[in-house]
Amino acid sequence: MLILVTNDDGIDSPGIQALAQAMHRIGDVIVVAPDRQQSAVGHALTVSSPLRATPFYREGSMIGYAINGTPADCVKLAVSTLLEQRPDMVVSGINHGSNTSVNAIYSGTVSAATEGTLMGIPSMAVSLDSFNPSSDMSLAADVAFSVASRLCDLGLPGGTLLNVNVPNINRADFKGLRVTRQGRSVWNDNYDVRKDPQGQPYYWLTGDFVTVEALPDADDLAVKDGWAAITPLHYELTNYDEFERLKSLDLIL
Amino acid sequence: MLILVTNDDGIDSPGIQALAQAMHRIGDVIVVAPDRQQSAVGHALTVSSPLRATPFYREGSMIGYAINGTPADCVKLAVSTLLEQRPDMVVSGINHGSNTSVNAIYSGTVSAATEGTLMGIPSMAVSLDSFNPSSDMSLAADVAFSVASRLCDLGLPGGTLLNVNVPNINRADFKGLRVTRQGRSVWNDNYDVRKDPQGQPYYWLTGDFVTVEALPDADDLAVKDGWAAITPLHYELTNYDEFERLKSLDLIL
Repeated sequence: MLILVTNDDGIDSPGIQALAQAMHRIGDVIVVAPDRQQSAVGHALTVSSPLRATPFYREGSMIGYAINGTPADCVKLAVSTLLEQRPDMVVSGINHGSNTSVNAIYSGTVSAATEGTLMGIPSMAVSLDSFNPSSDMSLAADVAFSVASRLCDLGLPGGTLLNVNVPNINRADFKGLRVTRQGRSVWNDNYDVRKDPQGQPYYWLTGDFVTVEALPDADDLAVKDGWAAITPLHYELTNYDEFERLKSLDLIL
Repeated sequence: MLILVTNDDGIDSPGIQALAQAMHRIGDVIVVAPDRQQSAVGHALTVSSPLRATPFYREGSMIGYAINGTPADCVKLAVSTLLEQRPDMVVSGINHGSNTSVNAIYSGTVSAATEGTLMGIPSMAVSLDSFNPSSDMSLAADVAFSVASRLCDLGLPGGTLLNVNVPNINRADFKGLRVTRQGRSVWNDNYDVRKDPQGQPYYWLTGDFVTVEALPDADDLAVKDGWAAITPLHYELTNYDEFERLKSLDLIL
């Protein structure tokens, strides 16, 4: 069993180290991850510049490659070119910050797992609901181990990945695993407008993550409530109700 | 009627100029677009560096802003901060290269329209099925005009955008508008491995776009067949069949 581990926080982040250790309990691990922070890159691919793959060592052992690209680049390059053996699983994370609700579409962590499923490999993303880089990763690592050890047997349909989000709480307060759906929280965005020393404006993205609608079984609410949320996501983006309705309108140029 | 025009090929591309001209037939136009090529950026947001908005002039008139960011950044920054009036519509394109099938998840053009719908604004993306920068944009511009002029009246549900793909053919061969769904073409990826003058490898992404399954009403096949394909997309990513099946499995940690 070969497990490809990647993330969007970069190969040096505590989250990917915790994940790689957890995956070692299941099989052989190869880490192919961005050489630097790549948060909120969405499903970006590097097409107009070449990629480099730098062997990455820890305690004297080569554990994989650092890539000057995005999480999706890492999975594509690893599976198609770098690895001699096709991985049995792609596991992305552990992300610092949850990827519930609308965050799934901005998330590099999720996009890496998406790329894995697009290549026909069972894939999952794992995120911890805390941006604090020194958060305790052990619960999230145990959840990752638990879900990943069953991932190949779950029989996920093609193009479907698991998006796992873990609350940042004490183990005593943890309620367990729960199958969820993508919730309805969104970002209320704002830009902090500042002036540079020449008096010219520049803009920093800020925002609050707010719940628009409390859906039953929503991933965002489950995490708030102390559950590890497991959401099956796919990239079938057609709105079929709308497809049928628009077809009936007889649009002409 | 104020129309926000953006793209991922950058503010200087022929495609956005053709689109802005077409939108002038409908209402006032403001262009807020990346200052450079941003293809395949997916739904990326710039979070770890500030954005700049440079007023952009053509023939002596300010037509909008060039942003050092992604298409999604452009829409967020424009709507939340730069524009004094909320736009009535977001139109993204005309992209050089089709965004059918799996391309929708990699596309910056589509992500700009997605960001518009997330902000509650009727939005559409328009792409021409040709990577040739000197392609004739007039048919795609006419299609964009035709669809955009009805966009606000179509009553699209929240979170749903129109992804419009136009064939690169003579007008005589053009069959008209067709409501479609996301097709099943994918990229067979490959990396071209080269050596730098120091003998170190680097990797260029290449690939062929191949049809995996010929779905009825698929966008990719409709475009090949001479239709302008109009696909309603949304970002409800939950695979509901799988959600129900997994719930029945009673997963425990």
